[in-house]
Amino acid sequence: MSKLVIVGTVAFDAIETPFGKTDKILGGAATYIGLSASNFNVDGAIVSVVGGDFPKEYITMLEDKGMNVEGLEVVEDGKTFFWSGKYHNDMNTRDTLATELNVLADFNPVVPEDYKDAEVVMLGNLHPLVQLGVINQMKAPKLVVLDTMNFWMDCALDELKQVIAKVDVITINDEEARQLSGEYSLVNASKKIMEMGPKFVVIKKGEHGALLFHKDDMFYAPALPLAEVFDPTGAGDTFAGGFSGFLAKTGDFSFENMKTAIIYGSALASFCVEKFGTERMTQLSKKEVHQRLQQFKSLTQFDIELK
Amino acid sequence: MSKLVIVGTVAFDAIETPFGKTDKILGGAATYIGLSASNFNVDGAIVSVVGGDFPKEYITMLEDKGMNVEGLEVVEDGKTFFWSGKYHNDMNTRDTLATELNVLADFNPVVPEDYKDAEVVMLGNLHPLVQLGVINQMKAPKLVVLDTMNFWMDCALDELKQVIAKVDVITINDEEARQLSGEYSLVNASKKIMEMGPKFVVIKKGEHGALLFHKDDMFYAPALPLAEVFDPTGAGDTFAGGFSGFLAKTGDFSFENMKTAIIYGSALASFCVEKFGTERMTQLSKKEVHQRLQQFKSLTQFDIELK
Repeated sequence: MSKLVIVGTVAFDAIETPFGKTDKILGGAATYIGLSASNFNVDGAIVSVVGGDFPKEYITMLEDKGMNVEGLEVVEDGKTFFWSGKYHNDMNTRDTLATELNVLADFNPVVPEDYKDAEVVMLGNLHPLVQLGVINQMKAPKLVVLDTMNFWMDCALDELKQVIAKVDVITINDEEARQLSGEYSLVNASKKIMEMGPKFVVIKKGEHGALLFHKDDMFYAPALPLAEVFDPTGAGDTFAGGFSGFLAKTGDFSFENMKTAIIYGSALASFCVEKFGTERMTQLSKKEVHQRLQQFKSLTQFDIELK
Repeated sequence: MSKLVIVGTVAFDAIETPFGKTDKILGGAATYIGLSASNFNVDGAIVSVVGGDFPKEYITMLEDKGMNVEGLEVVEDGKTFFWSGKYHNDMNTRDTLATELNVLADFNPVVPEDYKDAEVVMLGNLHPLVQLGVINQMKAPKLVVLDTMNFWMDCALDELKQVIAKVDVITINDEEARQLSGEYSLVNASKKIMEMGPKFVVIKKGEHGALLFHKDDMFYAPALPLAEVFDPTGAGDTFAGGFSGFLAKTGDFSFENMKTAIIYGSALASFCVEKFGTERMTQLSKKEVHQRLQQFKSLTQFDIELK
């Protein structure tokens, strides 16, 4: 069992989908990553910041899930990061209605002393300089996983490239991979991105699954076809949490084991979208996860005799 | 080994892609299906029509691949069906520049006497009434596979629905499945389409692979991520040819065997796009197919312990 450091936002989200809308509910990349990774009983720590308006019971809930929250700074006279968005009918695209950085604007991440020797670091989507600040506090991490998005490619590309040069795995979506590499083909895009630093590239394609690239090896994980996607918020973070959580639990960072990690990430993400916000992830049983993994197996397994 | 009847266009295509353009070259749904199915040494017959302008060596080539061409009518004073199209830079969308029906306008398909007892019928994309005409000539087919497209949904929906009611398997792309069913989710779309007749629904998602639905079972076949797609023309037909060819060869029409058939179809389609038109499919070796299938295996295989 390795230690896992998770950095990312802990936030309020207000979400509107064709199925309904929410008031301010619990959200944030680190929240989803932590909830997802907690399925592996890893020794995880969340590094983030919230304001005095953040309910104590949310913090307690994260602790109950086994997350160390020493690095979750509470700025008593500040307000928690807030994001509001509205999904279109296809559920694949969304408009951001509001982004209030609040306490995130001056966030200076501090990794708890006991977690500076963690083997696995999961850098959730945040400003690249914050991600870099976390990497620099780590003693000798064996696996650093980076999640990021097009926003940072648009407005902090140099800083983002500094982070990319220091990580082992990057997870981005297909459009972002194209933007970052300037290549349309995802095969070529992954090659260019590997030249920037990461040995592994995970390209998330939403309802079309995810691709893992490493040297000349490829792996294609499907997404579970769903009758209804209720709320896609946090699916990518949940994927990242399942992926990094499984790797922290097993301590095996080989290509073969990363395939399995991607299946775990995909399976957990398939739950996330079934309800608004974090609701589904806080109520997940081991049995449900087991059944979902079984579904992924039967979804992709085939017999072929190759003599 | 079952007999396989293939109906579809045999045509001239003129293709433009970002990589170049061709003059009139060999094309047509039945051509691609036949070339693809020939990899299984099936006893196949092509039912189609060409004009007097159609080179005899193309017909000989199809015969050399083991296809019976008795049902390939030659209208000496007519011209062969011609299609011309230009692909956009993303290679996923295209503009049709010209469609000249020519001899196809009055095509009355005739299934050769020796093939009326064929077990498997592959209805390539054509007017639904022509497809219906072929079904009606068959004695007792065990498996009828239908390929069609949005064009017929727009202009011959009633006739198309008559065909759909009589087939065992339908293969369409994701947008067509949505159009036909009125459902956005492919899970729900496949359910509605199964209610129209077919016991199996195959939804082709291009670079995102293909889904097979049967009752409550699902299977997800990936597409091989390619560095370059040279010319997508015929990929769907090649998929259908591999799918129906494998099923005709094995005579096993179970869900399990259809999974394997879809992998064969996907593997063969991945060759088709490597060169212009039918070029790659006419030069394919058993060894190359074998290696590609091995790639599909390693692309999707993962280890997961489920206790």
